Amino acid sequence: RMQRSNARNTLRHCLDWMDRLGWTANFDRVSQGATEAPRPGWPFSDSEIYKLMEALAWEYGRSGEAWANAVLESLVDRIAAAQDGDGYLNTCFGHAGQHPRYTDLESGHELYCTGHLLQAAVARARTVGHDKLVEVARRAADHVCREFGPTGRAGLCGHPQIELGLAELGRVLEEPRYTEQARVFIERRGHGTLRPIALLDASYFQDDVPIREAAVWRGHAVRALYLAAGTADVAADTGDVGLLDAVQRQWARTVERRTYLTGGMGSRHQDEGFGEDWELPPDRAYCETCAGIASVMVSWRLYLATGEVRYADLMERTLYNVVAASPDADGRAFFYANPLHQRTAAADIRPDRVNPRAEGGVRAPWFDVSCCPTNLARTLAAWQGYVASVEGDTVTLLQYAAGELRLALDGGGALVLRITTEYPHDGAVRIEVVEAPDREVHLRLRVPHWAHGATLADRGGERGVAPGWAQARGTFAPGSVLDLRLPVEPRLSWPDPRIDAVRGCVAVERGPLVLCAESIDLPESWSLEDVRLDTARPPRADGDGAVARMTSVRPPPPGPDGSGYPPYRSSATPPREAGAPARREVPLVPYYRWARRGSSAMRVFLPTAQHGSGGDD
Amino acid sequence: RMQRSNARNTLRHCLDWMDRLGWTANFDRVSQGATEAPRPGWPFSDSEIYKLMEALAWEYGRSGEAWANAVLESLVDRIAAAQDGDGYLNTCFGHAGQHPRYTDLESGHELYCTGHLLQAAVARARTVGHDKLVEVARRAADHVCREFGPTGRAGLCGHPQIELGLAELGRVLEEPRYTEQARVFIERRGHGTLRPIALLDASYFQDDVPIREAAVWRGHAVRALYLAAGTADVAADTGDVGLLDAVQRQWARTVERRTYLTGGMGSRHQDEGFGEDWELPPDRAYCETCAGIASVMVSWRLYLATGEVRYADLMERTLYNVVAASPDADGRAFFYANPLHQRTAAADIRPDRVNPRAEGGVRAPWFDVSCCPTNLARTLAAWQGYVASVEGDTVTLLQYAAGELRLALDGGGALVLRITTEYPHDGAVRIEVVEAPDREVHLRLRVPHWAHGATLADRGGERGVAPGWAQARGTFAPGSVLDLRLPVEPRLSWPDPRIDAVRGCVAVERGPLVLCAESIDLPESWSLEDVRLDTARPPRADGDGAVARMTSVRPPPPGPDGSGYPPYRSSATPPREAGAPARREVPLVPYYRWARRGSSAMRVFLPTAQHGSGGDD
Repeated sequence: RMQRSNARNTLRHCLDWMDRLGWTANFDRVSQGATEAPRPGWPFSDSEIYKLMEALAWEYGRSGEAWANAVLESLVDRIAAAQDGDGYLNTCFGHAGQHPRYTDLESGHELYCTGHLLQAAVARARTVGHDKLVEVARRAADHVCREFGPTGRAGLCGHPQIELGLAELGRVLEEPRYTEQARVFIERRGHGTLRPIALLDASYFQDDVPIREAAVWRGHAVRALYLAAGTADVAADTGDVGLLDAVQRQWARTVERRTYLTGGMGSRHQDEGFGEDWELPPDRAYCETCAGIASVMVSWRLYLATGEVRYADLMERTLYNVVAASPDADGRAFFYANPLHQRTAAADIRPDRVNPRAEGGVRAPWFDVSCCPTNLARTLAAWQGYVASVEGDTVTLLQYAAGELRLALDGGGALVLRITTEYPHDGAVRIEVVEAPDREVHLRLRVPHWAHGATLADRGGERGVAPGWAQARGTFAPGSVLDLRLPVEPRLSWPDPRIDAVRGCVAVERGPLVLCAESIDLPESWSLEDVRLDTARPPRADGDGAVARMTSVRPPPPGPDGSGYPPYRSSATPPREAGAPARREVPLVPYYRWARRGSSAMRVFLPTAQHGSGGDD
Repeated sequence: RMQRSNARNTLRHCLDWMDRLGWTANFDRVSQGATEAPRPGWPFSDSEIYKLMEALAWEYGRSGEAWANAVLESLVDRIAAAQDGDGYLNTCFGHAGQHPRYTDLESGHELYCTGHLLQAAVARARTVGHDKLVEVARRAADHVCREFGPTGRAGLCGHPQIELGLAELGRVLEEPRYTEQARVFIERRGHGTLRPIALLDASYFQDDVPIREAAVWRGHAVRALYLAAGTADVAADTGDVGLLDAVQRQWARTVERRTYLTGGMGSRHQDEGFGEDWELPPDRAYCETCAGIASVMVSWRLYLATGEVRYADLMERTLYNVVAASPDADGRAFFYANPLHQRTAAADIRPDRVNPRAEGGVRAPWFDVSCCPTNLARTLAAWQGYVASVEGDTVTLLQYAAGELRLALDGGGALVLRITTEYPHDGAVRIEVVEAPDREVHLRLRVPHWAHGATLADRGGERGVAPGWAQARGTFAPGSVLDLRLPVEPRLSWPDPRIDAVRGCVAVERGPLVLCAESIDLPESWSLEDVRLDTARPPRADGDGAVARMTSVRPPPPGPDGSGYPPYRSSATPPREAGAPARREVPLVPYYRWARRGSSAMRVFLPTAQHGSGGDD
């Protein structure tokens, strides 16, 4: 459903905005030699066109829609015309009236943009094969290797991404020079080469510590994660176990101490960055949509490199609770930041305006820095790629969604499976074999970490399956059926007590979905800031959400004059909240859908009646 | 003591840094017509010179130190030489090779700098009278009135400050044109005139809502507070009750919902701004030193305009817990941000380097944006001005510090008082009359809001005095003594439950001092993130701090495989922290002194053993 609205609405929506703002026409200015006039858009706006092109390439590969191909080819012609003779391609630097090439590696984003160009070409190469876009990318990559190779300019880009683009292009074109250049960029980082940007330090662009030595992700979240994704690719393709270990170690520490319940990453608005260990404020959670996408990219690469189920678990958590939260139902408005607590319902925004980062709990059609919409577009267009993996005659189902999967086996032939499910809103997943080779095949099904009590029924009967992999091995006849049942009853999830910002609170999850309370669902006289969750009675399932018993307390009354300076009160024991608390059943809805029924205050973590400060129950 | 180290060290320290960085020489470049070369410093660096000049003027007025006067006069000569013929004075705009005047009102800070020039002149006028600096300021103010008057350019400055400078200069020079121009700027703001800065909206510079209509302070904290201070001046001098009411209303709401226990204001690093109501994270508290200074300026003006004790209470809280926290003991290193929670001990910084904002729990000698050191310098040099007020024959003592006060009475003569006290470390304040007129005088002593059980002893005996004003009226003979005793036993202070970020926590205060726990004082095997305060046994006084009984818990062990995704655990009841908690007596020290014994982790709010999530006591 999200892929449909992405294809129908989001791709066109992005193109319209970028046309309107003049970002696409920047390529024509270069090809026409008209670069003297002020150039609209940030220096990195080229990358938005490339991300849209990547989305169009995946979409055409997925659906075969002719318009996607036509739009893509038209864009390819325009960018190809803007490419310089030596392969350099950028609309912001290096032409008449512009700063010379590579004079602002810290903030200029030239190599970053090139990285996205290469990823667009990879999507094309993987879906239709070598074409004009691939040729443009190859020339751009060759230029980068000449310019920044081991004996060339010892520079690196303030925003990692070229590493990922080179590694992916190197893999698909079987061109080890590109992989090697990616490795050179990766090793070059972490030695304080980049000049610090005002008010920020070298950790902002991960130039503080070499990646082999770093313990955890830090600084700007998207930068850290793109770097990790590119590094995982290089490590896998070069068999560099030490490098892969480094990324795995950083993943583990970051997930344990710097990751939100939603899978969101990035606790700080200031530098769009990770905070320190345990710094996970729900209200000021940045959790940029792009960081969620980048986290999925990293986990996917680590899963492919190691086969460990924990990576697929985090992908699911992040896809359903960060990536899916960003677009509105029709794919024409987006969250940029994805906080877990919205104190006050946001003011409506103008749908025809470019918005600032839209921190205020309302999805916006376009942003001043508009990286998220096109990033979402390419991710949703390629989403089917994350559903399953094949190795030899082993087929692994990682994510569950209705549809038909055709999986080519290394030993020849294909396994075709029809999946019937309402997942994640229901835990029943039916897998029907449509086509199978006439030999033994190994089928593995991911049982998510939360799915205690799951069962798998097949011709051998029903059996319990533990979190991890449920396995079925045999010669499958067409028409044979496997029924996986994942329990999706609501459950309480308690934060580690070192996460100060949600002390005394609990969240409710259901299957892979994090739930939340929205003010729009509260009794009229209630305020979300006074609500307490009664954990003595467990929340029960309701629709695709839950219903929980809550109380509403009144704040402690002002003390006798002078007993403290408001809002702080001095007394030997904590002030008790006033009045008999009211009790009601209150709905909890999937977080990804919040603010879709209108502007609302929202909380994922709710103070508990028993354990909150001054709980009165 | 702080005034001494300010005079001995800070003033010279600031001058040395500004000489070294070329900020003072910018004036010479203008006077010598050498402005084509790139200009060092931010556009607002002129204001740092002016704040230092203000500090020097107050210091010379306070101590009569000749060197302060000499340095000031030398600076006056250099800035006077840079003033244009029409009174315009700025080293960043309007000269050869620079952008024209007033072409970037949003970010250029021209009027802001002028405002600080006027304040420096006010300090001079109030201490030595009219001199060359006052003349320079008068010409600059006349220029501003001509340029931006009711019939002139309808602009305003992105950073309020000119309002304050004009109002103060208007008052001291008895020049209503300046007050009127301040009023014009104030009324002009709030109508979306300024172009938004990228990623920020109009509330950043309070251009979103007219000040008469605003409910609360919002946006950049220093801007909001300078604007409020200037507005309070204009309201008082023009008798505008509605305008004064607006500032009082905004003060009350901000103090109740957007102010830290320390008096600190500004919850966000991103825009150095206020957050929403109840958004008061201790770890990411910005609480800029300059915002603390500005808050004192606002409260002082509101106290003078209304006589209400609550304003003097907040001034004390902020002076002792924000302003006093900034400088190191010798006044050569400063906090810029003043968080209430430092998770990890900061890395040492290079004392010879310009630093970024120094968020990391270590005082720095100078900053990239270095507004705080000079702001602190001028505030400490003028601090004695906040100690007392006189109206008719009523003398009010607002703050308590050892020294001799000479208070000229409106009815003629003076009251000279010698104050002997170790306040705030001890609550005994002895007030000895050294000189008094031979008629009835009314003496009022502030009894702080926390001082329940205070007593006042004079010739009439000892009596209890409630928070507010303790009063003594009579004809005082030289040698007569009043003994005020303020109880400074440690007390627990509980946050309003709507402050989510410190739910389940409590702070300890002692007199006007907020206390904190530093990791340097913990048993070696303890970590500050695992400490719980045992509130069953109240903290007891120790030195100028306290000792509290604390426990150290161990985080819950990892659940059985799959019982949650770390760091979140799924279970019907909250996971219990593991192991028998260790118990120890742990020191608490005054917050203003934290990180003076070396780098340390620190907490003001401590989770309670009884009420914290998973407390095991």
